[in-house]
Amino acid sequence: MTVKRTEIADLGEFGLIKELTKEFQQSIDTLKGVGDDAAVIKFNKENALISTDFLIENIHFDLAYTPLKHLGYKAAIVNFSDIYAMNGTPKHITVSIAISNRFSVEALKEIYNGIQIACEKYNVDLIGGDTTTSEKGLIISITVIGEANQQEIVYRNGAKEGDMIAVTGNLGAAYMGLQILQREKAVFIENPELQPELNEDNSYLIQRFLKPEAQKGVIEYFKNEGIKPNAMMDISDGLSSELFHICTQSGVGAEIEERFIPIEELTFNESMKMNIDPSVSALNGGEDYELLFTFDKKYMEKIIENENITVIGEIKSKDKGIKLKSKGNNLYDMKAQGWICF
Amino acid sequence: MTVKRTEIADLGEFGLIKELTKEFQQSIDTLKGVGDDAAVIKFNKENALISTDFLIENIHFDLAYTPLKHLGYKAAIVNFSDIYAMNGTPKHITVSIAISNRFSVEALKEIYNGIQIACEKYNVDLIGGDTTTSEKGLIISITVIGEANQQEIVYRNGAKEGDMIAVTGNLGAAYMGLQILQREKAVFIENPELQPELNEDNSYLIQRFLKPEAQKGVIEYFKNEGIKPNAMMDISDGLSSELFHICTQSGVGAEIEERFIPIEELTFNESMKMNIDPSVSALNGGEDYELLFTFDKKYMEKIIENENITVIGEIKSKDKGIKLKSKGNNLYDMKAQGWICF
Repeated sequence: MTVKRTEIADLGEFGLIKELTKEFQQSIDTLKGVGDDAAVIKFNKENALISTDFLIENIHFDLAYTPLKHLGYKAAIVNFSDIYAMNGTPKHITVSIAISNRFSVEALKEIYNGIQIACEKYNVDLIGGDTTTSEKGLIISITVIGEANQQEIVYRNGAKEGDMIAVTGNLGAAYMGLQILQREKAVFIENPELQPELNEDNSYLIQRFLKPEAQKGVIEYFKNEGIKPNAMMDISDGLSSELFHICTQSGVGAEIEERFIPIEELTFNESMKMNIDPSVSALNGGEDYELLFTFDKKYMEKIIENENITVIGEIKSKDKGIKLKSKGNNLYDMKAQGWICF
Repeated sequence: MTVKRTEIADLGEFGLIKELTKEFQQSIDTLKGVGDDAAVIKFNKENALISTDFLIENIHFDLAYTPLKHLGYKAAIVNFSDIYAMNGTPKHITVSIAISNRFSVEALKEIYNGIQIACEKYNVDLIGGDTTTSEKGLIISITVIGEANQQEIVYRNGAKEGDMIAVTGNLGAAYMGLQILQREKAVFIENPELQPELNEDNSYLIQRFLKPEAQKGVIEYFKNEGIKPNAMMDISDGLSSELFHICTQSGVGAEIEERFIPIEELTFNESMKMNIDPSVSALNGGEDYELLFTFDKKYMEKIIENENITVIGEIKSKDKGIKLKSKGNNLYDMKAQGWICF
């Protein structure tokens, strides 16, 4: 098979941006996208929500097991997730990419293709960006712009004593997906002739890591049902770490029950196989991009009917600390062992 | 002299962001800055303007002659400039920085200090960002958010036949500043014991390169006088390159007169000393962050009274091409020799 390779220098910066963004659709709220000093957008709600993320090769991702299209998709999704975590709607993104000359135009197109698929799925417009050379490796910087009415916005600091604590979906799957990918990479480095041990069971876990989704459906469910959480954030660094943020910023304590933490059977089995306590995968794993939120008990009846949401504990007064009740009914102090960048 | 060096690992990511942003003031339009999944801002005008830029060590800047505080200042200014170039007002920025561990917390603080000075001078709020490790070098990604009413916005594609063409300030100074810095770096590499030849004359040129300003005053002048340009952009890649953008996007031609191009005496003299045609410095130099705009002749009387603005030519029909009338009254085809990244 011959793969086409166009050098970036052949297109020039302006030709390149045009080539990369030509397939992107734009909504009527984008008055001007790529091609001027700045993009021009219109808001239909009172407030704009802004979040930004860096993704750096060998720090945040490993191209040994990350297809470029998945990388583009995930880069967009993790930013959308930050806006949903405020109970808002992502509307626009800018994408800046720096690459060394080991990458071809076709490689860049793969990344943009992944971003485009994410944008179409979540109704977000690409409105601008910057493409430049790097001295080393691939660097992606994305800024997302969302909108929300002021009374809809949910912050991290609004948790109240007596609130219930809930999470969406299930936890620890992305972490186990990463463990499988790292194991297969290590095996491949040892012996490049061995075929990777990737089967249907672990393809779910790998997909959770490589191609996560943002929780659009949950935010729409809140709106339809008239539910407003008191505090919310997305689980990027792990449940423990995020719960610490909510409690610290809200000035409260919390107690969650280990037996309620939602863990998929596949995650549980793979954890056991690798001698990792499944609860540790769920508590400290990270990158699931599920939502952690606290809500007033008056919504309890509605919330428990939603199969995608699991109530895992309760907000306590600050002096109670942040506790995990184990399956054996012992209370342990929780630790904020998220993923630390430095 | 002992310079304090705090390792970034000593603070952790959250401590670091807190430490770096604690001195920044925020206006009432920033409802939530750093510290949640996203920042929350409020607009007083109809539209938001968004622009984003990457600054990468050894591609866009050279730390051999760029003080970190200046780097932070310039990184903010070049983004503000993009918003003024749309005839809008910059209001908020996000700053993401990736650094290798050769940098200390004190080095990061210098960069943020420069950004802070720029934000205070231009009334812009820092609302968020990301700080992470890089494999190599220093990488800064800034996104700026501005505002404007729809009828105020000036695009690149609005130039009309018969419009006058004007620029603010003077051109080529930043380019000559860069030439001086590169010459002194080369001399230093040859012989580290030689003192740099930096005198008062060239300190103006160096400052134009290291610490440019954005054209806030000109945009305020337009508003006060009821002037709306037909097309505008900022001069980051050089006058020729930017004029080509305006003409191509507007579907028009242009003729500018060499003798009208505003060149400071210091720029002129330094160009002559280095055997560079001063007009070439002005036409192709770039990084001056002055504004290039076209306007209806009805504003001519007002415009010529403004000492900071120079009329340099006229928009022609497309078939006339893009021409430079030389001092000897010959017509030459202009070339779009801006600064090309790839």
